[in-house]
Amino acid sequence: MKRFLIIGHKALTTGSFSLNDMPGSAGRMDVLCRCVNSCFFLSHDLRRDVECFLVLLGEPDAPKTVKFSGEKVRYLNPDERSAGSLLQKALALPCTETFRESTRGVYVRRGGLKELLEEFRDEEGNPIFAILDENGSDIREIPPETTPTAFILSDHMNFTEEEEEMIKDLKRISAGPKVMHADHTITVILNELDRKNL
Amino acid sequence: MKRFLIIGHKALTTGSFSLNDMPGSAGRMDVLCRCVNSCFFLSHDLRRDVECFLVLLGEPDAPKTVKFSGEKVRYLNPDERSAGSLLQKALALPCTETFRESTRGVYVRRGGLKELLEEFRDEEGNPIFAILDENGSDIREIPPETTPTAFILSDHMNFTEEEEEMIKDLKRISAGPKVMHADHTITVILNELDRKNL
Repeated sequence: MKRFLIIGHKALTTGSFSLNDMPGSAGRMDVLCRCVNSCFFLSHDLRRDVECFLVLLGEPDAPKTVKFSGEKVRYLNPDERSAGSLLQKALALPCTETFRESTRGVYVRRGGLKELLEEFRDEEGNPIFAILDENGSDIREIPPETTPTAFILSDHMNFTEEEEEMIKDLKRISAGPKVMHADHTITVILNELDRKNL
Repeated sequence: MKRFLIIGHKALTTGSFSLNDMPGSAGRMDVLCRCVNSCFFLSHDLRRDVECFLVLLGEPDAPKTVKFSGEKVRYLNPDERSAGSLLQKALALPCTETFRESTRGVYVRRGGLKELLEEFRDEEGNPIFAILDENGSDIREIPPETTPTAFILSDHMNFTEEEEEMIKDLKRISAGPKVMHADHTITVILNELDRKNL
């Protein structure tokens, strides 16, 4: 399973935002919608072996995590409004610490980065995630057997100090010489994992 | 200069489409909007050395070509509606065989693939474009000095027989082992050109 965790620092935690203004009134929800697209869409196919976790830190009820499962997801089309509409439905549900399904393959719970770092650990007890970072090791230079398959990205903002403290011991991976938007970075990383047959 | 030419086989040639339904009533205009995003956006920067040509073949007034110039473009944000709105303004202009600017760095004219193939030729008189094709040569295997920097892609549909006839002698380039959406393909190709310093 490949996993992408994207932090939306201002993304609203209510479903009552307008699909007509996701960049503005929804706290750059458009960035997260494009990340969902990048995680899953292939030509006439979906990547069933990907999970996408959106950590939403905006008003009024942060933190919440919305999970999209490539294996289970339905009703997802490539346009931004489609992912936005599934996010609206997820965020409209009352939520607890346990994932609850809002539409097929989309789940919501209370909690954020801290919980995901605790939950996804390797056999030695370390978090499985690598950080996408322009100053990290070039993913092309890493042999397939040690290439990470779980990644953390930020939206249009930098990681906060508190987040940096939580992720400071994780591997840092770069996707290339120019710093890209989060959704483009996911596309490039998945292309590299395809080439390494991961 | 890097160039991407994307053919929108059903994309409307009038500006009177709804930004709220670009996948449906606008003939998959959403695909073209995402391609514009992929051509230009970097983190806190725009790719000024890219030109994007959208060939629109839908009702009611095909063919039209809309050109986005990375060097000149203004008012472009990463969300689909932003590119869609600039396309609306371009397609609302009366147009002739000569590019006319609709908003800063966005131009429209009558004509399509045939005209662009004639216009962009190398010193030997051959079209400069390569075709992105799953069965083509892997772009990573091509040395920088012979790597193309101009590419033709189709939207969600295959090239028509007539188009295939026009492009049959062009190089075929692949972006990886899995067939991706046009916008994801552009992202991967630009990452490769970045790495080759092209």
